[in-house]
Amino acid sequence: MRTISIHDPDDPRIAGFRHIRERDLTGREGLFVAEGEVVLRVLASAASRCRPRAILLAQKRVEALADVIASLPADVPVYAAPQVVLDGIAGFALHRGILALGEKPATASVEALLCDVRADDVFVVACGVGNHDNMGGLFRNAAAFGARAVLLDDLCCDPFYRKAIRVSVGAVLRTPFAVGTRASALVEALRAAGVEVLALTPSATERLADYRRSGPVAVVLGSEGPGLPPEVIGRCRAVGVPMAGGFDSLNVAATSALALYQMTSNGDHPEFKR
Amino acid sequence: MRTISIHDPDDPRIAGFRHIRERDLTGREGLFVAEGEVVLRVLASAASRCRPRAILLAQKRVEALADVIASLPADVPVYAAPQVVLDGIAGFALHRGILALGEKPATASVEALLCDVRADDVFVVACGVGNHDNMGGLFRNAAAFGARAVLLDDLCCDPFYRKAIRVSVGAVLRTPFAVGTRASALVEALRAAGVEVLALTPSATERLADYRRSGPVAVVLGSEGPGLPPEVIGRCRAVGVPMAGGFDSLNVAATSALALYQMTSNGDHPEFKR
Repeated sequence: MRTISIHDPDDPRIAGFRHIRERDLTGREGLFVAEGEVVLRVLASAASRCRPRAILLAQKRVEALADVIASLPADVPVYAAPQVVLDGIAGFALHRGILALGEKPATASVEALLCDVRADDVFVVACGVGNHDNMGGLFRNAAAFGARAVLLDDLCCDPFYRKAIRVSVGAVLRTPFAVGTRASALVEALRAAGVEVLALTPSATERLADYRRSGPVAVVLGSEGPGLPPEVIGRCRAVGVPMAGGFDSLNVAATSALALYQMTSNGDHPEFKR
Repeated sequence: MRTISIHDPDDPRIAGFRHIRERDLTGREGLFVAEGEVVLRVLASAASRCRPRAILLAQKRVEALADVIASLPADVPVYAAPQVVLDGIAGFALHRGILALGEKPATASVEALLCDVRADDVFVVACGVGNHDNMGGLFRNAAAFGARAVLLDDLCCDPFYRKAIRVSVGAVLRTPFAVGTRASALVEALRAAGVEVLALTPSATERLADYRRSGPVAVVLGSEGPGLPPEVIGRCRAVGVPMAGGFDSLNVAATSALALYQMTSNGDHPEFKR
């Protein structure tokens, strides 16, 4: 096994892994931190858009991850440390015992993602989604249903934040995304590319369940408190999911699952099955 | 305004709110802790199955909550404290500034919840769901789609845990639930009551999107790692949601949203619309 043993939390070779919780908030120069076995396996897989830079494992986890380690490029160092040293490096108890540093891919432009739209494409547009759990859930669902790409407005949080990656079970590393400026500009770009754009909003009179797609489609989702701004809804076809008993609206990640399910899995549309 | 001012974190009148984070883990003798405005409004509403015992607010939140305070029974004390005192009582910075103690309702038996099943009923069955976020999301979706009740096996976490209540946006306080023993016994009880029981599992050959209900139905959901045990799946009609590109399965709360959507909102079944 080609691991490099680390016995000192201050070892300069693992400086990139130090105090990751505090540094989540300040960014890390084109790098991101991934944690846990599921995400590491995505990062090491052919489906990943991101290159691993370095891996840091608890010594006790090395054996079970031998296949992943063997699959990594030879120039990616794999450090192994006793659990107590690992906790000292990260700055908190790292129960999963698996950390990776990866390189964010080159930023894609909205235009580049929309240059060859196909009839069965589905795009997810997030508007003001600032919660990392929701962002991760949204990417997880986008990957699960094979969305072509995710488009974010400039009010969204960074999907490469550690918790968002973890909640996405690695989808952030697979699914292409672009960050635009305002959501209304994203909607216009999609429409110009021939994509029908749906706004998911409780104010809609048309039901999501009654919508049938006839070509490429995008679903626009807002944050839970304020919802989508009127100038976004006004540019879209508004659809909604009726709620029972006057209950509060659905969580935005759950709503994305419903919209993607309706666009891709509906039995009435075999041509859009994935 | 009938609030009682508190200036000392050690005031015995608010002893029930002390150190709530630690006490989440040990239970609190038939009481639960709710936090935040949305949950407080559910607790104070007619839809709640739970009686409020006491409310503790940051002084600055009192005015905006005047209508909720006025709607509470006269014997429910409403304490108000400066933010710094509130943080001292709770044991951590309580940004929301809103806490409530409520009484858990009498435990319902599985049999009692199944004694008058109607044709349009949908039940949610959770099997080994130990994560409070997922439990909260599952209840939120159950309430959003008007599920009749939630049934939990004895491996599930407590829905009355503070975080589960918060994530459910109060649905835990509204939607009836019962805790059984093993999941297979819950399935048998449902079948004996004339309910068709679906197991959501990636191993299914039948697609959720192709399923059409013809009467009362239950959806059984497992935890994400191990999934549903074979002895549970074997007692159910197995349905699944195909995933794109070999991606990992959906989150259990997202899966519950899809199953409930399919059971209640599908345009093909106007008799089951809610």
